[in-house]
Amino acid sequence: MTQITQQFASDNYAGICPEALAAMQEANQGYVPAYGEDIWTTRAADTFRTLFEKDCDVFFAFNGTAANALALASLCQSYNSVICSAQAHVETDECGAPEFFSNGSKLLTVPTQGGKLTPDAIRALATGRTDIHFPKPRAVTITQPTETGQIYTLAEIQAISAVCRELGLHLHMDGARFANACAALGCSPADMTWKSGVDVLCFGGTKNGMAVGEAILFFDRTLAEGFDYRCKQAGQLASKMRFLAAPWIGVLESGAWLRNGQAANAAAAHLAQQITALEGLELMFPVEANAVFLKAPPALLDGLREKGWRFYTFIGGGARFMFAWDADLAQVDTLASDIKTLHAAL
Amino acid sequence: MTQITQQFASDNYAGICPEALAAMQEANQGYVPAYGEDIWTTRAADTFRTLFEKDCDVFFAFNGTAANALALASLCQSYNSVICSAQAHVETDECGAPEFFSNGSKLLTVPTQGGKLTPDAIRALATGRTDIHFPKPRAVTITQPTETGQIYTLAEIQAISAVCRELGLHLHMDGARFANACAALGCSPADMTWKSGVDVLCFGGTKNGMAVGEAILFFDRTLAEGFDYRCKQAGQLASKMRFLAAPWIGVLESGAWLRNGQAANAAAAHLAQQITALEGLELMFPVEANAVFLKAPPALLDGLREKGWRFYTFIGGGARFMFAWDADLAQVDTLASDIKTLHAAL
Amino acid sequence: MTQITQQFASDNYAGICPEALAAMQEANQGYVPAYGEDIWTTRAADTFRTLFEKDCDVFFAFNGTAANALALASLCQSYNSVICSAQAHVETDECGAPEFFSNGSKLLTVPTQGGKLTPDAIRALATGRTDIHFPKPRAVTITQPTETGQIYTLAEIQAISAVCRELGLHLHMDGARFANACAALGCSPADMTWKSGVDVLCFGGTKNGMAVGEAILFFDRTLAEGFDYRCKQAGQLASKMRFLAAPWIGVLESGAWLRNGQAANAAAAHLAQQITALEGLELMFPVEANAVFLKAPPALLDGLREKGWRFYTFIGGGARFMFAWDADLAQVDTLASDIKTLHAAL
Amino acid sequence: MTQITQQFASDNYAGICPEALAAMQEANQGYVPAYGEDIWTTRAADTFRTLFEKDCDVFFAFNGTAANALALASLCQSYNSVICSAQAHVETDECGAPEFFSNGSKLLTVPTQGGKLTPDAIRALATGRTDIHFPKPRAVTITQPTETGQIYTLAEIQAISAVCRELGLHLHMDGARFANACAALGCSPADMTWKSGVDVLCFGGTKNGMAVGEAILFFDRTLAEGFDYRCKQAGQLASKMRFLAAPWIGVLESGAWLRNGQAANAAAAHLAQQITALEGLELMFPVEANAVFLKAPPALLDGLREKGWRFYTFIGGGARFMFAWDADLAQVDTLASDIKTLHAAL
Repeated sequence: MTQITQQFASDNYAGICPEALAAMQEANQGYVPAYGEDIWTTRAADTFRTLFEKDCDVFFAFNGTAANALALASLCQSYNSVICSAQAHVETDECGAPEFFSNGSKLLTVPTQGGKLTPDAIRALATGRTDIHFPKPRAVTITQPTETGQIYTLAEIQAISAVCRELGLHLHMDGARFANACAALGCSPADMTWKSGVDVLCFGGTKNGMAVGEAILFFDRTLAEGFDYRCKQAGQLASKMRFLAAPWIGVLESGAWLRNGQAANAAAAHLAQQITALEGLELMFPVEANAVFLKAPPALLDGLREKGWRFYTFIGGGARFMFAWDADLAQVDTLASDIKTLHAAL
Repeated sequence: MTQITQQFASDNYAGICPEALAAMQEANQGYVPAYGEDIWTTRAADTFRTLFEKDCDVFFAFNGTAANALALASLCQSYNSVICSAQAHVETDECGAPEFFSNGSKLLTVPTQGGKLTPDAIRALATGRTDIHFPKPRAVTITQPTETGQIYTLAEIQAISAVCRELGLHLHMDGARFANACAALGCSPADMTWKSGVDVLCFGGTKNGMAVGEAILFFDRTLAEGFDYRCKQAGQLASKMRFLAAPWIGVLESGAWLRNGQAANAAAAHLAQQITALEGLELMFPVEANAVFLKAPPALLDGLREKGWRFYTFIGGGARFMFAWDADLAQVDTLASDIKTLHAAL
Repeated sequence: MTQITQQFASDNYAGICPEALAAMQEANQGYVPAYGEDIWTTRAADTFRTLFEKDCDVFFAFNGTAANALALASLCQSYNSVICSAQAHVETDECGAPEFFSNGSKLLTVPTQGGKLTPDAIRALATGRTDIHFPKPRAVTITQPTETGQIYTLAEIQAISAVCRELGLHLHMDGARFANACAALGCSPADMTWKSGVDVLCFGGTKNGMAVGEAILFFDRTLAEGFDYRCKQAGQLASKMRFLAAPWIGVLESGAWLRNGQAANAAAAHLAQQITALEGLELMFPVEANAVFLKAPPALLDGLREKGWRFYTFIGGGARFMFAWDADLAQVDTLASDIKTLHAAL
Repeated sequence: MTQITQQFASDNYAGICPEALAAMQEANQGYVPAYGEDIWTTRAADTFRTLFEKDCDVFFAFNGTAANALALASLCQSYNSVICSAQAHVETDECGAPEFFSNGSKLLTVPTQGGKLTPDAIRALATGRTDIHFPKPRAVTITQPTETGQIYTLAEIQAISAVCRELGLHLHMDGARFANACAALGCSPADMTWKSGVDVLCFGGTKNGMAVGEAILFFDRTLAEGFDYRCKQAGQLASKMRFLAAPWIGVLESGAWLRNGQAANAAAAHLAQQITALEGLELMFPVEANAVFLKAPPALLDGLREKGWRFYTFIGGGARFMFAWDADLAQVDTLASDIKTLHAAL
């Protein structure tokens, strides 16, 4: 067995980063009003508006599944549909949450490369059928980075936004790993969202180093009407909201949000660069953010498991390594070493 | 203005108690699997089973609204109904969450004294109509303590349970302030729940001194089938579940859960005893747990507000003072003093 | 046993009136496109617009429960609420359909006299609470005539509409027995609806002499956006729509719709006038439309049952007699005679 | 323009067959209780039980979309999923009705040949994933005949049923054109349903020659618990139920149900046999029931349209001709003739 002090099966395996924890502790003083009527929530929302250079509406939900589903439900009626990649998390891993929260909005899926939608695919689905038996699309959702770690360029987002606006579709961004995308592109949050035509963003806090929580930003504020009530009815309104909000202040004000993304990306690159040249192995997708998908012979994957490594293989049978904010490069080296050792033995 | 270092508008205004915070920090070591597949969640569930002396199914949700609504949805079909007090939180303060999560289960309300249902009222609603146009009741929910602080005796719970079993109704307990009830009755959690015929309990963590989180305990395990999937679809499955679960270990193993309830109750009694004799003022409900409802002339309530005190008046126009785990008796004295001063001035 | 050739337990017990049946047969020629793209549906919609003197949007649903629930769902978000009488059919006899179709819009009920809402009651509910835990009302629904046969005067409807407009609430009218109300008031359909501020009307076809079907008229056309899709998703879009639509042409063009209402009302008056003076019996509500609610000693009601009469007693234990389009006055005389006979025997 | 006295765009274009209309008229005598408590409904249900040689539970809904969606909702929880063909009507043409009625049950689709599911495809989907993020399948739905007119053999249905039973899945049959399948296979209704392992059948009345209405038969009666209430809440309980039920008596007792299916099938065969040999044209699917899908050059299809023929082309761009109970073979000849003329001209 390898000495494993850190697994890379998911970026949800990591704990709370220091900046988030410190902020939660700082907020844990005295009493504050509940349900978001407190200075921490106000300050967190303001911090988002500053970071995004936009007077957007900011909400906090408990997790990404709820955040995505609530956002999509606010963009659609039950008889509308949402266009997404066939690999989108909202389609593959939310157990029907979008359909549940919206009371029946169908997800119309597009087979994609690396999980990325294209303007043409969107146009085809949105205009292909116009009859009464087909739920008219009303929103498009893109995951940035995608579930396989691909990053839309700003131009790609803008092109998607353009076709959305042309066809009367709202554009939602699932930013469960938003920080990783910003870190990879080296662009500002504003550049990647509203300046490129995104209407609503779900910004992942949990994968970024927090205990719990996602932020939902409405750049098009008309879409946010009643959203606080929608959250409340859906069991997503925190009473001690300060503890969901303060960690955001911690990571945003300190810049830890971005450093966390950079660190995770660096770890992925660190692994990729050590194994990319190995004969017979394949990086299934370009490593653009914090994920490495390794295609290898079953014997090698079994060998890794025997050594104690945990990883999922739900995408094409390849091993997925996902790096979190606290990725330990020495452990990445250990993983790379084990891969090379097993590879040599085959 | 009074020097106010603590408000008593809600027990949600308080922060995280030391035992919960310490446990969260202790759990913040290294990596653990996500979605509840971790040692902290397992241990927390076991701790509940030990405390409740029962091999029950344990789940964690983010807040009480979701916990209650999920539990009720698991007990009913959409065309069933739930019997509750007209003052029940699920009816008055959840913005339609039960109806949302269940896809349309109606709440059938009973006007009550101090929020307590009676076997007769349940029987009347459950048997009054049997036609196809009326949603058959399938569950009864009681809040313990009630929203106005009244506590069902064990005999009362057993009587309700008896009629529920007779009529084929499941019995749910909204235990948002469960600890306060246990503290007041001096009974065991088992006594107050499954030993008295309760099928499902939502045990409030937030009001008990945690940052976030409720536990849902199914004493009748057949009712828990698929509940994990129900939580997942409803956006109530935490990825970094350890941070929802560990605080429970902290408060349960240390006994802080009960001490927190006792402290809050003591503060309420401390206030009540100082103002109960004041002429023209009225304690609207017996002070049995951690709430004091004060009926007073508008001028007195205005006076309290001018002094800086915050309180809600949504029940019969009376001022509600709700004490949390960290209630400061000196502050309670200050409030009592202000009340007496204003009273004397009138 | 009495020779009973017609029961008066419900106006749903009657069959199809000749004008509706003839129209259905006339429409049963050859082929027409499905889903409403046919000349019968177009003509029926035009006939409504002519009758109502308004360029409204017209839809057809299969029954009143669906029509009401769909209309209310189109006026609200799931986190809104609907204000209605505590005796409203949508609250008492639809098994939670409004909550089901809307994904959780609560019905906020007002105890009423004869089922009639008042502006003050609406205002109190709509402005009493404004907090995040309370589902903001977004619609008011009135039943005309009410479930106990009371008729809102035009002035009463206008007063309700005025407060609705002031408070940003949409006004829906459940017109399951619309024809009976028009017949009683002697006013035009326009007078009773949009000219008095009603936004949406569900016009009952079934109780008016048709086999199946309700019409939904949106006088405020902005509220009708997507309603065809809403109907489709909810299983309320008829494929052979001509058979739902043509009977409307039959009853509207011939005036049978109004005559049917008048006949039913006349039968109710005919009964009421024969029994109103009987000592110890009571007409529980003024007989303004086609319903008679008789309060009588249990022995008398039992006697009527023994004679073979069927009637419901769900409102205050009184016997409800509801007259349909084909009410046979001779049979009404028989019922009156039996009542008098039993009364004399007591 | 061709002299077109009958279109073949849809079997919903046809009217009511004589047996159904006569029965409706016969039922239109006097008064009967509402909501199915009448002799016609009882008799219709008994007639089904006789025809299907099974003591099944029988319900009536207004249309196929509702019938399918209600049936599937009764087989699943919201967090379950339903396995179906990617071409299934429930997936492609119900505007999200299954998701709406079930509060979020996802449809998991399988690309198929001619719309037919296979045991292997079912097994793969039902066992491929077992994690908490994936909605466990709980039901399989097959359309018989499929949307492209293919008919499952009894052996095929049994094989599907076997894998369903093995994997704990309920088997639903969408029988919108059930009569056409029975006619084609020459088997009994029992053979094609419960004797082959089908748990629930939606038997299409509308396409079979009725004005409105579908029957839902639960062969596994345990699955029907509460279904009447489910229908009521969903706006699918007819008040004058006799008019939905009596036509079934008309077509079932007379055998017209089967003759109607045979006639429609014969018309399809009549067309197919006249055009099958034409060079460059293709029957996209074997003509097994009452549908003909013709692949032809766009110029030919345009020519048919110019001649006045209506047809949909939503499946692979081919022209769909669907024959109803009253298909006029002379008109079929006319269509065939026009096709041949246009073909010769190309």
